[in-house]
Amino acid sequence: MKEKGLLIVLSGPSGTGKGTICKALLKKNKFNLSVSATTRNSRNGEVDGESYYFLTKDQFLEKIEKDDFLEYAEVYGNYYGTPKSNVMEKVQNGEDVILEIDIQGALKVKEAYKEGVFIFILPPSMEELKNRIRGRGSETPESLMTRFKSAYKEISFISKYNYAVINDTVENAVSKIESILIAERCRADRVEQKIYNSQEGIINEQFND
Amino acid sequence: MKEKGLLIVLSGPSGTGKGTICKALLKKNKFNLSVSATTRNSRNGEVDGESYYFLTKDQFLEKIEKDDFLEYAEVYGNYYGTPKSNVMEKVQNGEDVILEIDIQGALKVKEAYKEGVFIFILPPSMEELKNRIRGRGSETPESLMTRFKSAYKEISFISKYNYAVINDTVENAVSKIESILIAERCRADRVEQKIYNSQEGIINEQFND
Repeated sequence: MKEKGLLIVLSGPSGTGKGTICKALLKKNKFNLSVSATTRNSRNGEVDGESYYFLTKDQFLEKIEKDDFLEYAEVYGNYYGTPKSNVMEKVQNGEDVILEIDIQGALKVKEAYKEGVFIFILPPSMEELKNRIRGRGSETPESLMTRFKSAYKEISFISKYNYAVINDTVENAVSKIESILIAERCRADRVEQKIYNSQEGIINEQFND
Repeated sequence: MKEKGLLIVLSGPSGTGKGTICKALLKKNKFNLSVSATTRNSRNGEVDGESYYFLTKDQFLEKIEKDDFLEYAEVYGNYYGTPKSNVMEKVQNGEDVILEIDIQGALKVKEAYKEGVFIFILPPSMEELKNRIRGRGSETPESLMTRFKSAYKEISFISKYNYAVINDTVENAVSKIESILIAERCRADRVEQKIYNSQEGIINEQFND
């Protein structure tokens, strides 16, 4: 049995900077980024197939019918989803895949694949969170307020995750996440599986002694 | 409630180099080393109160009577034990304590304090393990054979631990353990507790909103 890759789920409230952390992680590590599908309009500078797969509502519903999402959800009137086969093929093949996703989505992925590494990104403080959301500049006052309220509530979901990382600086957060992934690869159950899988394995020698 | 320190338990078969790893970790980090008590004779260069507390059998039995050990065991005819109050006071006070201990001992510590971080140190291969035990030069052929057989058996205990680290080089092993400890401090339950404890906490702000 081939050793599986890690499914790394970066999640947390809107505006905590998980997108920036994700980009910084991808720059330094050989992860596959899972590109989400969405029915929302593309923002300035977003590229189809890179930022998101931009689908019509009909296209999205068709994929739901085909059970082609690891998770999907309607958020602020738009559909967002994670194409299933993409992600799981890579993980089964020993490659690491990183998913940057909202909390609703992360909890659904956890139901489908609890072996994932679920990391909650926290803002250094709620004041900072407000500034970050304001700084984004792509929101109406109404959607801003919706995001604020949502963020407050969502922090209580932290206990559903394996890890929580405070985004005080992107550098610190990235470094902590890299440590988490090293630790996950050292988890006793993983190492044990690896030993059993290996022809040169220590356990095999034990039995041949 | 004060945030607790980590109780880091480094364990594994004899001769996997956990002592060397422990020393290297202590050089680079602010851990408290838990010094064990033992009734075995001191080897060349060992200092009482640093390498071990060297006790007579009577002194040891008296401490057992007083329930003053986190764990104790008889190994190869000698008693070894971890003084309880030393370790737990520091952990409760937010300090990290590192315990380098055999497998029997580690499993007993786990019974007493399952919140510890239990790390199994593996040799890169069994051949290497044999060489290392031979290289130590302080054993009779009989005790060497006893150690070999014990090491083979003990590796199957890996599943009782949280993590397993292969000691390919001391540098690599130390670096992995440091990552494990960073990850442990990011565990969702720990961070959540920290947030609740903090006056500046994010959750508090949520309720005051």
